[in-house]
Amino acid sequence: MTRKPRAHTSRLHVALAAGVVLTMIAGDALGQDTTRRRRRTEDAKPIELTPAQVADLTKLANSRKLSVDDLVAAAKTYLPSGRHDDYVLFSSGGQSGQVFAIGVPSMRLLRSISVFTPESWQGYGFAGDNDAVRERLKINGKPVEWGDTHHPALSESGGEYDGQFLFIGDKANARLGVIDLRDWETKQIVKNPLTVSDHGAAFVTPNTDYVIEGGQYATVLGYGYATPEDYKKSYRGMVTMWKFDRAKGRIDESQSFALELPPYWQDLADAGKLASDGFFFVNSFNTEMATGGIESGKPPFEAGASQRDTDYLHIVDWKKAEKVFKDGKAKKINGFSVITMDTSAAEGILYFAPEPKSPHGVDVTPNGQYMVVAGKLDPHVTVYSIEKVKKAIADKKFSGKDDYGIPILDFDAVKEAQVELGLGPLHTQFDDKGYAYTSLFLDSAVARWSLGGEYDSKNADEPWKLVQKTPVQYNIGHLCAAEGDTVSPDGNYLISMSKWSVDRFLTTGPLLPQNFQLLDITSPGTTMPVIFDAPIGVGEPHYCQMIKADKLKSWDIYPEIGWNPHTQALDPHSPQKGKEGVVRDGSTVTVNMTAIRSHFTPEHVMLEEGDHVTWRITSTEQTKDATHGFCIGGYNINLSLEPGEFAEFEFTADKPGTYPFYCTEFCSALHLEMMGYLHIKPKAAPKADASDTKPATTASAK
Amino acid sequence: MTRKPRAHTSRLHVALAAGVVLTMIAGDALGQDTTRRRRRTEDAKPIELTPAQVADLTKLANSRKLSVDDLVAAAKTYLPSGRHDDYVLFSSGGQSGQVFAIGVPSMRLLRSISVFTPESWQGYGFAGDNDAVRERLKINGKPVEWGDTHHPALSESGGEYDGQFLFIGDKANARLGVIDLRDWETKQIVKNPLTVSDHGAAFVTPNTDYVIEGGQYATVLGYGYATPEDYKKSYRGMVTMWKFDRAKGRIDESQSFALELPPYWQDLADAGKLASDGFFFVNSFNTEMATGGIESGKPPFEAGASQRDTDYLHIVDWKKAEKVFKDGKAKKINGFSVITMDTSAAEGILYFAPEPKSPHGVDVTPNGQYMVVAGKLDPHVTVYSIEKVKKAIADKKFSGKDDYGIPILDFDAVKEAQVELGLGPLHTQFDDKGYAYTSLFLDSAVARWSLGGEYDSKNADEPWKLVQKTPVQYNIGHLCAAEGDTVSPDGNYLISMSKWSVDRFLTTGPLLPQNFQLLDITSPGTTMPVIFDAPIGVGEPHYCQMIKADKLKSWDIYPEIGWNPHTQALDPHSPQKGKEGVVRDGSTVTVNMTAIRSHFTPEHVMLEEGDHVTWRITSTEQTKDATHGFCIGGYNINLSLEPGEFAEFEFTADKPGTYPFYCTEFCSALHLEMMGYLHIKPKAAPKADASDTKPATTASAK
Repeated sequence: MTRKPRAHTSRLHVALAAGVVLTMIAGDALGQDTTRRRRRTEDAKPIELTPAQVADLTKLANSRKLSVDDLVAAAKTYLPSGRHDDYVLFSSGGQSGQVFAIGVPSMRLLRSISVFTPESWQGYGFAGDNDAVRERLKINGKPVEWGDTHHPALSESGGEYDGQFLFIGDKANARLGVIDLRDWETKQIVKNPLTVSDHGAAFVTPNTDYVIEGGQYATVLGYGYATPEDYKKSYRGMVTMWKFDRAKGRIDESQSFALELPPYWQDLADAGKLASDGFFFVNSFNTEMATGGIESGKPPFEAGASQRDTDYLHIVDWKKAEKVFKDGKAKKINGFSVITMDTSAAEGILYFAPEPKSPHGVDVTPNGQYMVVAGKLDPHVTVYSIEKVKKAIADKKFSGKDDYGIPILDFDAVKEAQVELGLGPLHTQFDDKGYAYTSLFLDSAVARWSLGGEYDSKNADEPWKLVQKTPVQYNIGHLCAAEGDTVSPDGNYLISMSKWSVDRFLTTGPLLPQNFQLLDITSPGTTMPVIFDAPIGVGEPHYCQMIKADKLKSWDIYPEIGWNPHTQALDPHSPQKGKEGVVRDGSTVTVNMTAIRSHFTPEHVMLEEGDHVTWRITSTEQTKDATHGFCIGGYNINLSLEPGEFAEFEFTADKPGTYPFYCTEFCSALHLEMMGYLHIKPKAAPKADASDTKPATTASAK
Repeated sequence: MTRKPRAHTSRLHVALAAGVVLTMIAGDALGQDTTRRRRRTEDAKPIELTPAQVADLTKLANSRKLSVDDLVAAAKTYLPSGRHDDYVLFSSGGQSGQVFAIGVPSMRLLRSISVFTPESWQGYGFAGDNDAVRERLKINGKPVEWGDTHHPALSESGGEYDGQFLFIGDKANARLGVIDLRDWETKQIVKNPLTVSDHGAAFVTPNTDYVIEGGQYATVLGYGYATPEDYKKSYRGMVTMWKFDRAKGRIDESQSFALELPPYWQDLADAGKLASDGFFFVNSFNTEMATGGIESGKPPFEAGASQRDTDYLHIVDWKKAEKVFKDGKAKKINGFSVITMDTSAAEGILYFAPEPKSPHGVDVTPNGQYMVVAGKLDPHVTVYSIEKVKKAIADKKFSGKDDYGIPILDFDAVKEAQVELGLGPLHTQFDDKGYAYTSLFLDSAVARWSLGGEYDSKNADEPWKLVQKTPVQYNIGHLCAAEGDTVSPDGNYLISMSKWSVDRFLTTGPLLPQNFQLLDITSPGTTMPVIFDAPIGVGEPHYCQMIKADKLKSWDIYPEIGWNPHTQALDPHSPQKGKEGVVRDGSTVTVNMTAIRSHFTPEHVMLEEGDHVTWRITSTEQTKDATHGFCIGGYNINLSLEPGEFAEFEFTADKPGTYPFYCTEFCSALHLEMMGYLHIKPKAAPKADASDTKPATTASAK
């Protein structure tokens, strides 16, 4: 305590006047370059562990009770500061209505992308009255501001992920979202006008000509009404083919159409590729057409829908369907084009093949030759051959027709193999070495098994044979291997989307996270260990796809100052530097504002009670990561303004008062000073003396 | 390809009839026990690395370009499957309006907790009309359904985190949320009726008698209006003391009060403890009372608010303030009790001390003897002594009064030390070894420095001295050490809440994640390396607190079947097993439903167009992690039903049709069958024949 404290002012104060500070606060100043250098140097030099280092590492491992396998797993998954992941996992968020991007192998959540649920931090749905996002989320004129996102689908070219777009289905409301992977923002949401809910969306054809949306719970097409007694007569299933216009980056609803299907519960879909290009395949269950009714002493759906030994794999010749649609042979239901079952049967669009009871996943092998169906109440996967399917169709090898006149292909004529894997097989993905990986829900395991046919020479095992299983914790639903549903899977990594975590993580109250488990599948000759458990505590993801990170060509900043992400173009209304101000036309007011570290221009906005306001802001930043936010205290408004971005919102100034607005994203050392005031003058202005001033409004304080 | 495919049916089908399946689908079946055993065995046995294992590890490290330091960092942070984190970091979510719980050292996001922003996956704000959460989020009768969460505060007993409650402030809207850490759900939101926005919330007194909410941007108290010309006269700052009733687990608004303050921009607060118990401290900036106006050629706020060399540390004797409030000496503004500045000055409640320009953080040392202020435009931290403050007050050592009559303590009389650390010091936390840690925004570094006084004998360094710095990537805002703002910090870990990530992670479009960096601070004698980078891609967290995991006593399941989390009690309206059904009274309908794997009872709900419906559901599950969801397709309704939970929602059946409802949380192998139908019969019912049926409604397909 002998050191003399310094004076409380400093020479640096002068240097730190605001102007100078402004030049110092860019995120890319300081630290960054040296750290980069440090990393690069280390990268270049292979390590050799000295005995002392081994001893230290061993001591550390023992103090943390790590096994040798744990040390290896740590080394396989750890990413030092600044090192990037090899893959990006795009995962549905389940009932969160979002998409999550997760790095692999580190399993770190890189970003959520808002789709069906407004998220304030992204400024998604928080742009005041008539917000474009909220308008887009309405169904029948009413807000439906959440989604149950199940199936993400990356756009493909030639059956490979091309990294350009991501589609995501909303099971609860039969909607489809389109995300542009240049700025990772949702650009479009389409609502299926035929059905209330769905399941099997989204799946793309190999060149993303179409995005396939399969149904789920049968309803009366077009939002109709019918009682359970009329189930067989009035209820219908469907599958919709949404036409994608890649140049526009949008679904073209006018060129999209659906197929009417029997009221079985259609489920997942997969598009054929290579050998099976031109077809797609949809599972179904409840071909029993059970209608439940536990409240009347009838068997509940869970029992009623599980009675028959087989359900129907739907085999759709979509190129034929497209031609039939283009030839004008589709009917309109609720304004949407539908190919009826009669037409499908007559034109040879739709065939059924028996599949073991209550299947969930149908997955086409990378070469397109086989369709693998996993029936959750059957311990096998069943493998169908597209060659056999084509031949059976040509030879009319039918075992009959279903109640709706759809021909049923003879099972033995189209089946290639059945492989017994264990209890509760659900979904299958593939690697680069001729193996398939199937999730086993009831076994809580991932099964690796060998493919046959042309893969027989590629893998070291007897064809169509279970090779090994890895237990997972617990109750795996979908799984996902690196590019594992494309024409050229990578192998390397596999994610077990384990639905119950139970004891795997700290208890977070009665609501627990999901468990994404990372398996190392590099070496088919050895085990495929779980090397990381990643809790997902922000929703219940359903399916994911894993793409090579270097395929993504994301924008660092928007291409021009004043860019409108909704239109993906420079916005003609975007305020530009030097043109800021408030324009009044009667009670209609336009605010033109710019934002840059560390001020808004203007800083005071003077309005009058009752004004209708359009408020436009351009971020004139051009530095990567220089994001600003914008909110008005007490208003339901928050924008996220990425570098170059333009955003606008509308509101009516119906509550007089003085409201601070401020930047909601920490942008610089003077971030707190990046603020201003919105002044809404009361119609009968009070005296300026505050001590006389009665509050103009009353805050609710519930 | 010689193996004969099996028949497509299987002996197992019989065993897998629904009843049997039901007994197999519990999450705690299979796999789990064996895995637990495996882990325990490994834990018991210290490892010794064989030369072959060292060679393998070295090869792996080199293939992934890991340094020896990286291997060590990996071993320090890796958690094998099922091993739990040591600490939980409760982090604000920034403009996401949430709280995030993150495990340390693994840095895995365990769960988000919805507070100010509805989140569908938690069923938070998605319970139909008159939803309790949405009602609670209204301000002035209008929805404000987001928040800018800045400061979480764990409840304390004797200055230690007790793991019972968590408070979280909403800067944008001056609100405070109360979370019960038994079920990790938000129980209450209070809105400050005085001010539009705030910043310095929440901070608790050492026994959580009060939760302190400091202001930020001055306004006219009570939501009033005044132009910038009247700033000094009409604008005011404030700090509010919210009384917490621990037995009820709720803020008691009637026993809460505020202090009127000059229109400086009050900022962060910290409560005194031990030596300084009974006081709290609030920073301020813009004591210049600058009013900006860049649009009129005036200096912007960022320059105007940075002119003076000093601002004012506010020193509040809250026990005196409490007495003054209880003695009825507070005024009412907008219905809320406010102690005026005159009263504060007269009663000796409020004192100022000069503090270096534009400070951000004020942090009390664990022993309560020192207040550490970091001025972001001054390279020092300034340390004040509570003993000196008390003596200066007693001795009336004032250097004057401010414009509002508040006495200013003589700086030299209250200052203990100033320590030069670097550029942009913001916030300070503490360890168990007599060191303080301060974030340096402009330097992008964490500084470790030695405390003096009684800490002088505890640490190995000269008192009040910078010991070392670690660069972080980039631009750190807050930091957080393990229990580092309590009376007994743990040391061990420190989080750098780095605000810019720039190049640290894969580019996720123009909007990048934050970077939570984990530093190992166990050994003051050596470095304090960054050992993990965790991207936060779901909001921009502002501050966090890190609590020992074993202090949390979370519920695994709700205590009784039919528990209402809003009231934290068994709900008298909760449907119980055997009492399900639909009760009609005219057009008022009550649905009583139960949910258990894998069915809802009832499965069909028959309504008529125009019915007003209250729909009640009880989950009768009693197994940890057996969560169900509930949604009605096309409706803005989604519930999360944790084991034992009761929930209800209201709606008007105004759109006829047949709507599937289903479980939105994957619960069992027969999860997809856990569904039913809501039938809303049109007032003029159409014929049952579907081919004649015109759709009753039209889906929007924008």
